[in-house]
Amino acid sequence: MSTDWLDEIKWTVSPGESSGCSGDGLVPVITQEQSTGKVLMFAWMNREALALTVKNGIAVYWSRSRQRLWRKGEESGHTQIVKELRLDCDNDVILMVVEQRAGIACHTGRHSCFYRQLEGERWAVVEPVIKDPGQIYKGS
Amino acid sequence: MSTDWLDEIKWTVSPGESSGCSGDGLVPVITQEQSTGKVLMFAWMNREALALTVKNGIAVYWSRSRQRLWRKGEESGHTQIVKELRLDCDNDVILMVVEQRAGIACHTGRHSCFYRQLEGERWAVVEPVIKDPGQIYKGS
Repeated sequence: MSTDWLDEIKWTVSPGESSGCSGDGLVPVITQEQSTGKVLMFAWMNREALALTVKNGIAVYWSRSRQRLWRKGEESGHTQIVKELRLDCDNDVILMVVEQRAGIACHTGRHSCFYRQLEGERWAVVEPVIKDPGQIYKGS
Repeated sequence: MSTDWLDEIKWTVSPGESSGCSGDGLVPVITQEQSTGKVLMFAWMNREALALTVKNGIAVYWSRSRQRLWRKGEESGHTQIVKELRLDCDNDVILMVVEQRAGIACHTGRHSCFYRQLEGERWAVVEPVIKDPGQIYKGS
């Protein structure tokens, strides 16, 4: 399998360079829901995560807090089926269009991670909790 | 004017910390078009850029390559009228919903910066150039 398409991506961006991100070989990923057009979340992938995502058609990210591959839904079951992958004009951001299992992308049990909206001078919660996180993450 | 809503944002993230980005006081911004739901671009803001964006209702980013405020459309006229601002569950990513003047967000003259799609093993261009960049950036 050719990896030219992986090589095209700017994975490593050092502090002080144009991107402002550390040289950790990651790329930012915007995840959008196909059926609604909603932006669900924002996360990171390394090369292995993207290759696995493409191979299996199911989203795998790189967890910076845990410093390991993060198979989205591994605990919650809220996997993401990949429908489309896009690359931006600078080769340094990926847009991934998915179908979200259970309609819950956020660890708070909400549809989208972007559930607060600026209203005047405060970030107001504008989306409901669909499922109690205590019920989603039973084993944690 | 209260700046509590600005203080809630995680602006500075050091290398090796959870975000992977350098301590430059920036926050990533996903820009989505209100009328189509399309993700148009991805860029960065510092505190001043976000404050100006909110104050005037017109998108202002921080240009990392030029290290200065970037009033989107300052050369092209392709300004973005802000309709909605969202903050994610980790307080470190902003989703901005806009109306895009001229329907062109990308410096290549395309609607969106995410104009290449993974087809098999290559990133195929799937969106047309709406206006020649040579005509957009006459003064540059």
